[in-house]
This record gives sequence, structure tokens and C-alpha cells, in this order.
Amino acid sequence: MPILNKDMTLCISLSGRPSNIGTRFHNYLYDALGLNYIYKAFSTDDLPAAIAGVRGLGIRGCAVSMPFKEAVIPLVDELDASASAIESINTIVNTDGRLVAYNTDYLAIQRLLDRHAVDPCSVVVRGSGGMAKAVVAALRDAGFQNGTVLARNAAAGRALAAQYGWRATDDESAVHAELIVNVTPLGMAGGPEAGEQSFSDAAIAAASVVWDVVALPSETPLIRAARAAGKPVITGAEVIAIQAEEQFVLYTGVRPSPELVAEASAFSLRQD
Amino acid sequence: MPILNKDMTLCISLSGRPSNIGTRFHNYLYDALGLNYIYKAFSTDDLPAAIAGVRGLGIRGCAVSMPFKEAVIPLVDELDASASAIESINTIVNTDGRLVAYNTDYLAIQRLLDRHAVDPCSVVVRGSGGMAKAVVAALRDAGFQNGTVLARNAAAGRALAAQYGWRATDDESAVHAELIVNVTPLGMAGGPEAGEQSFSDAAIAAASVVWDVVALPSETPLIRAARAAGKPVITGAEVIAIQAEEQFVLYTGVRPSPELVAEASAFSLRQD
Repeated sequence: MPILNKDMTLCISLSGRPSNIGTRFHNYLYDALGLNYIYKAFSTDDLPAAIAGVRGLGIRGCAVSMPFKEAVIPLVDELDASASAIESINTIVNTDGRLVAYNTDYLAIQRLLDRHAVDPCSVVVRGSGGMAKAVVAALRDAGFQNGTVLARNAAAGRALAAQYGWRATDDESAVHAELIVNVTPLGMAGGPEAGEQSFSDAAIAAASVVWDVVALPSETPLIRAARAAGKPVITGAEVIAIQAEEQFVLYTGVRPSPELVAEASAFSLRQD
Repeated sequence: MPILNKDMTLCISLSGRPSNIGTRFHNYLYDALGLNYIYKAFSTDDLPAAIAGVRGLGIRGCAVSMPFKEAVIPLVDELDASASAIESINTIVNTDGRLVAYNTDYLAIQRLLDRHAVDPCSVVVRGSGGMAKAVVAALRDAGFQNGTVLARNAAAGRALAAQYGWRATDDESAVHAELIVNVTPLGMAGGPEAGEQSFSDAAIAAASVVWDVVALPSETPLIRAARAAGKPVITGAEVIAIQAEEQFVLYTGVRPSPELVAEASAFSLRQD
């Protein structure tokens, strides 16, 4: 029997290629918490019209993914520090027609530093894409002043490092640090480099904490090797769950328990 | 457990004061027919932005109610004859970004003439508002050339009658016809005239068919008196169900059985 009603608050996502993850995560929590909300993923070929619709239909929240994270900037009313720090939006909150934009990837990186009690130390971030930018900015703003960007694309790596006052290198054998973070597709399920371990055994051995932003699988070759070496790890599944939790809190004002977030995240990643 | 998924086709309504009727009617049928659709009512304070959202988000269908039925005309790409006949839209269908507008009230009037085998004859339509216009235009276009508009607002009645080549009067004692149709709030539940019988016993006695467009309650004072007099009746519940069925068919391409439409309509009108 249908349970929908006219008073439900709608939240959506906009991306070039929608997945079911957000739709499953948010609706799972709405249901578990008895919130009169509904969530659905959308794509668009007219971003300004879609954002006009967010305003015109009173859509409460709008997650933004590739390829819209930068293009949407001029269409909102205000950037939170999390979005302005990296000039990239992944979350829009509509309060009575005023659109304020956030980047919950940035917020998730900082929350995970707190949760795992990782204090400023030497750090290497591998990668130079949009998510690497969020990681570098969040680390720098949390006090990690002496970081290194390791990137195969040397120009992109230098540009990213320069923006946040870090060093850049493309020589993976040269880098050792207390915190090592993978933000490349190395080890990602279904990708051409699914079997690749994104940092060497030597880099893992030299590290105090090993962090992989790849979420599928959560047990990447890097995470498996780090666990085998007895190192504390932070997984991509944690990143994706926390950034989604932050979106959820921004949209609803309700913070679900960590157990419920874990359930919703597991449900959202299951392929059924 | 939530059943929503990213691939659901969204249909919506836009009105000044949304009710739950459309949301319940359409979702009931989606569920019963196993269609991967979802429906929700919206209001808006920015109609052009809302219609931009219909385009930008690929919303398949959009019902339009007061006060937007005329204002939305310049925002669509094409008017079906049902909408251009009365310069009023209640349904928009979005096919690959092209918005074609219909008026399913007009279509429902004509379908009910067929269903109840009512051939052109003398007719009195009581009322002069937007729905009265749909009724007069649909009747005239179905061959009812010699109609009378009975309206308390004499100027509005004359204007409506003149537009479709009918006569107008404000003297309710003077009108008798084979078909009598109430399109005023007389007899409507919750209104100030809920107890009023919209045509006299004499007018009912003179009629061959008695039609009330008021849907709540479906057994209005007029319908009860007509049944007591042994007259065939057409109820507002039929009008609202058929116009909604026509919207459903336009959005989905699927025509539900009459039994299922009746079930969905009953569900939509129930207050639970």
C-alpha cells in the first residue's frame, strides 16, 4: 500500500550518472526514524533549470555530484566554508528559498580525523582529482601544514600542492609519512586497477595510519595490507557514510546514531 | 523498508493549496500496477521556476490546479485541443523536454457523456467559474448547441454563455432542461452551502439526467433528490475519477481497469 503523502519533504541528487546509493541511504534513515521525507536521484541536461526547480518546488536538499560540482556554484546564494575552501559543492540546503551550499566530503575528512584522533603529522595524499582537493584542503585546514601530493599527473599534482602550500612529487618510491591517504582509483572494484595496492609495503610499514578513500570494496588491497601490517586504518566506507550522514543532518536537523548510519550505509551499498 | 529507487519516474501536482487526493490516487495505481513511478503534490510561489524544474529534472507529468491553470499557459510548448478550448490547463505531459498541456476536466465531461449515453439535448449548467467553463465548452463541442448558463453572478454567466453561443440567465425558477448540471459549490461538504440543493424539485422532475460536479460528498442534496425522483445521475465522484484516470493514462500510457480506477478513487477520497 502506498505510504506517500502530499506533505513529504523532498530531497534529491543531481549527477551525470545517478547511482542508487544516496536514494537507498536517505530513504532507509527516513523510514527508520519516521521522518516524513522522501529522496530520489535525478540527472539533468539543464542544470540552471534543475536548480530553479529546487527553488520553485521547495525541494529541501540537493546533493550534487560529477559533473556539476563546480558549475552549480553561481546558481546558489551562499557558500559555506566547506565549499568555498575547495570551490566545489556537493550539498545544497534550501531554507525558505535561500540556497546555501556545502561540501560534506571536506567535512567528513575533518570528522574522521577527530574520530580516529589523528593529529597533525607528516602526510602523503596520493591523487590530484576533485576528491584529492577536498582531502588536501581539509587536512591543511586541520593543521597538516607539511603535506605531500603524490600524483602520476605531475602538473595536476603540482597545481594542487601549490594551492594549499604543500609539496608535490610523482615518485612514489620517495614518499614516506606518518599518515598516507589514497585518493586515486587504485584498488577500486570494477576499475582497470582493482588489484593494485596504492602504497608500497614500505610506505605502509613507515606509516602510523593508513587511509583509503576508495569505498568499493571497503577492503581494498591497501586496507588489507595495512591491516596485515597491524596498522590503524580509515576506510572509504567511513568517508562515504560520514559525508552522507552530514548531508542527512543538514537536510533534516536530525543526527542518527552511529549504528543506524552504519546500517543505512551497508544497505545503500548492497546490490539488491 | 523503503522501496524507492533512482529510476522511478516522478509525477507531481502544482496548486495553491495541495490536497492528498492526487498523491493517493496515482500512487495507489502505481503500486497496484507495479509501475516504477512516484507522485507527490507541491505548491510553489514561483510558477516559472517550478515549470523550469519540471523540464530540468525530467518530471514526466504535472497536474495544475488553482490558481495556476491560466498562468501556466505561456510556460508550456503546446496546447492540446482540450486545453485550448477553454484556455485552461490542468495537466502537463513532459516528453523528452517538450511540454504538452491538456485539460482532463474537459476530456472527462465528454467521456461521461459517452459512458452515460447522453445525446445532445436541452441543458442548463449552473455556475460560471473555471470548471463551469470546462463543462460548457465540452458540452458545446459534443453538440449541445442550445444550452443555458444559470449564474448568480449575471455578468460572469453572460460572458461564459456568449463565449460558447449559449443563453444566460440568473433566474433559477425559469430554467428547465433535459440535462441539468451543477457546477457551483452548492451542496459541497464543509462549505457554507453544504445543505443546499442546487436545482429545485421542479427542475429535477423536468430533467432526464441530473449531473452534479461536486465530488465531496458524492451524494449531494441534488444527487439524493434526483435518485429519490428516479432520475439517472452522474456524480462528481465520477468526474474526478475520470479526469484523474485520463491524467494517469497520459503520464504512463497504461489504462487501468474501471474497477481499479474506482478503488483508487475511493482510496484517494478516504480521510485516513
